[in-house]
Amino acid sequence: MDFDKEYRVEPSDEVSLSKRDTKTKGPFVDKAEAVAVTEQNVKTIQELQYRLFVEEKQSLLIVLQAPDAAGKDGLIRKVLGRMNPQGCRTYPFKVPSTIERAHDFLWRIHQCTPARGKVAIFNRSHYEDVLVVRVEQLVPKSVWRNRYEIINDFERNLAANGTRILKFYLHISPEEQLERFHKRLENPSKHWKLNPGDYEAREKWDDYRRAYEDAFNKCSTEDAPWYIIPSDHKWYRDVAVSSIVARAMIDMDPAFPPIQVDLVEIRRLYERAKEKQ
Amino acid sequence: MDFDKEYRVEPSDEVSLSKRDTKTKGPFVDKAEAVAVTEQNVKTIQELQYRLFVEEKQSLLIVLQAPDAAGKDGLIRKVLGRMNPQGCRTYPFKVPSTIERAHDFLWRIHQCTPARGKVAIFNRSHYEDVLVVRVEQLVPKSVWRNRYEIINDFERNLAANGTRILKFYLHISPEEQLERFHKRLENPSKHWKLNPGDYEAREKWDDYRRAYEDAFNKCSTEDAPWYIIPSDHKWYRDVAVSSIVARAMIDMDPAFPPIQVDLVEIRRLYERAKEKQ
Repeated sequence: MDFDKEYRVEPSDEVSLSKRDTKTKGPFVDKAEAVAVTEQNVKTIQELQYRLFVEEKQSLLIVLQAPDAAGKDGLIRKVLGRMNPQGCRTYPFKVPSTIERAHDFLWRIHQCTPARGKVAIFNRSHYEDVLVVRVEQLVPKSVWRNRYEIINDFERNLAANGTRILKFYLHISPEEQLERFHKRLENPSKHWKLNPGDYEAREKWDDYRRAYEDAFNKCSTEDAPWYIIPSDHKWYRDVAVSSIVARAMIDMDPAFPPIQVDLVEIRRLYERAKEKQ
Repeated sequence: MDFDKEYRVEPSDEVSLSKRDTKTKGPFVDKAEAVAVTEQNVKTIQELQYRLFVEEKQSLLIVLQAPDAAGKDGLIRKVLGRMNPQGCRTYPFKVPSTIERAHDFLWRIHQCTPARGKVAIFNRSHYEDVLVVRVEQLVPKSVWRNRYEIINDFERNLAANGTRILKFYLHISPEEQLERFHKRLENPSKHWKLNPGDYEAREKWDDYRRAYEDAFNKCSTEDAPWYIIPSDHKWYRDVAVSSIVARAMIDMDPAFPPIQVDLVEIRRLYERAKEKQ
């Protein structure tokens, strides 16, 4: 199955989230079959990450956005976070600090973009500034409406410097979300995640839906596409995202750089050290 | 086996590295037996890291120092790096940048110490400023000789703020190092690691040994102990370090915090949302 084609938002698309499936199991007979593919993808990703790291020419930025309980944390823990931490960092973007709020909205984001050879995973991102900020009216419309273009310019700059950008929206139904909230209530080790605010956000589901649709329609570009991933089944979310990431890294085709040192010289040094021993 | 007791440098010890074994297999009959213990340790570490993250009161700092090819990267990839990246970051300290060099030697280090709830892994560290800097005479003795006390003060401050500090030296023999250099020569995918400088450092093995011994003797404190880990066998290094880290985290005993929200209220919100659906 071509997950990239299936879930990529084309610049010409007019996304309507309610028409996008959340529950599909795709071509998979059962969960086990999908998990096997995910494991294969993770191996591919790990191998290519090593090459990316050594090559030190390109970088990869993965942006994750989703409603509460849609599974960003699980996706990081079980799939994306299995890259070598020496070349991959996760950045959570929470409510901005006083210092961050004293700058433009991209200031704190730009400090976390990946250097050559590195991978960065954004758990939430600059898109919050056209999502929660818009829905909760934290700035006037005259401010947030200009941000789509500012974001596109910003992402174009990153891409021009060798950063591959993949943006994932984990799409769950309100019914599945409520089911997951319920599971948190039943599991004491998840009680720290409980937050009355989650229910307030649910009341504004349609406002958030519209804000997300605008972000996808205005900011899914050739350089930095959005993918809308059916996520009611966690294993389906994992296989779809890992397939798209693996394929993008295959396409980036990182290569071991030409040897910078004189092999003959190194061999001579080795032989001499061996003799001395 | 009590790995902590076996390999911890006590403040009263006078370490002589040449008297410390590099090749031991400890109590293990074979590698498989040790790997099983390591896997168990990793599970313990992962579970306790989750609690540490949620508790948000303490933090953990792991410092790794070693000669070239002693296995810092392998230890991170196979063991320590399997913590959840949302709560754990690896920091490599390489040759300081122009900006870093314009500050005191702890300036860049302090920016990377772990926040409450987090784990930081230092791949090399502020100890380079009494190791390579001393051996290569990058600053005069009058400067580096004061650094041991400055380091102890710095680490005491971190500990006072709830940071548990574990410092590991991966101890390999010069023979094993040379063997690993040879393997790099034989494996083209490792050629990017080749560096004539590695052989220059070998020439100064005794100078480095003395510098390491001074660091252990002056800076292994109650708050921030050094451990000298026999590392000629990679699997032994992995089981020893993971055992010490797991035990330290058990001792930290991170706990889920008391619930901050009103469970009855959340349950009511859930029921109401369920009815509406």
